[in-house]
Amino acid sequence: MKVGVLGTGMVGQAIGSKLTELGHEVKMGSRESGNEKAVAWAAEAGDRASEGDFAAAAAFGELLFNCTAGEHSLDALEAAGAENLAAKTVVDVSNYLDHSAGPPPAVGLSHLDSVAANIQRAYPDARVVKTLNTVNADIMVDPGRLPGEHVMPICGDEEAKPGVVELLGEFGWPPDRVIDLGDLSSATGMEMYVSYWLALMGALGTSQFNVALSR
Amino acid sequence: MKVGVLGTGMVGQAIGSKLTELGHEVKMGSRESGNEKAVAWAAEAGDRASEGDFAAAAAFGELLFNCTAGEHSLDALEAAGAENLAAKTVVDVSNYLDHSAGPPPAVGLSHLDSVAANIQRAYPDARVVKTLNTVNADIMVDPGRLPGEHVMPICGDEEAKPGVVELLGEFGWPPDRVIDLGDLSSATGMEMYVSYWLALMGALGTSQFNVALSR
Repeated sequence: MKVGVLGTGMVGQAIGSKLTELGHEVKMGSRESGNEKAVAWAAEAGDRASEGDFAAAAAFGELLFNCTAGEHSLDALEAAGAENLAAKTVVDVSNYLDHSAGPPPAVGLSHLDSVAANIQRAYPDARVVKTLNTVNADIMVDPGRLPGEHVMPICGDEEAKPGVVELLGEFGWPPDRVIDLGDLSSATGMEMYVSYWLALMGALGTSQFNVALSR
Repeated sequence: MKVGVLGTGMVGQAIGSKLTELGHEVKMGSRESGNEKAVAWAAEAGDRASEGDFAAAAAFGELLFNCTAGEHSLDALEAAGAENLAAKTVVDVSNYLDHSAGPPPAVGLSHLDSVAANIQRAYPDARVVKTLNTVNADIMVDPGRLPGEHVMPICGDEEAKPGVVELLGEFGWPPDRVIDLGDLSSATGMEMYVSYWLALMGALGTSQFNVALSR
């Protein structure tokens, strides 16, 4: 599969590298082609990796990952272009972190809304799915780093979700540990959860954790 | 110990009953003494149980539980009276749920603030501790209902926390499963988490769950 990965940070690099290892072709997108981090990533990730601006990455991908910071995601997707998003699955991994008064950063754009729902409203022809934002980047693509039956929530477009669940399976998340939270209204809780996650990270002294369900 | 439990709902009743079973004396507080639910609860909970208005319950307790709905907590504490809160541990179990546009209800008063921090600011002489709001009422007082090493976060006043951790131990939460998230700034994450909890409850079809940590 051809995948466009928007964003050159730790999350974009982790997901881009995992996808190329799995045999997918990946174009990493950034504000301008030739971005230093994207070029270095593409050189290291091998033949199936390339880079370009947001529009080039979005046009390249049959499926897109939004790995930009939530504060900049709508700008990044505007640069990607509505015509390059239409009818495509857009997996939104973003978190909205306001560092202006931190640390710790303030989490979320509102307790009543989510980045993912904003993206869906701005691009009604895209098929937005929210997942993976609830763990550190390395755990997103290698859940076996942690013991136990820890879980990954997903929500969003019903037609796009099965394909994303399959991709999560390639990443190492068994289907019975992927919790379907329904439509994108659940993205609010998934993004707000990160405020709790940050407090837990502070208490545990590590980002290497996730939650499992006792029921 | 004499404990004032503010609130007559499921949470207040569960905590009040558990405390009387443990041998503590409990006065349940509500807007006006003689509240039907409080009277029925006190009759059933036995000799160590009584009821009164918010001020009577707050005056009675050496330690207080705020089990009112988060939307009404500041009003309830105002009725309780600053003089009845001063120098006392106030365990805030509340959640702020706005049902006006639900279901599901909107969670939290803001992604940047918490009920617990508002209480502490309004009553600087009180010792506010946030805990227990992350699980259903029956699990708060009987964590053994669920299998596994599921956890309970706590945050707030440093001098008050050890006593609350001890009380959580009486409820059935071993100290190593109580996660200290530091000061009250972590209450934002604990209250925002409930948005995620509600989505999980919808997906799982039950309120009988909690999260454990894989690390």
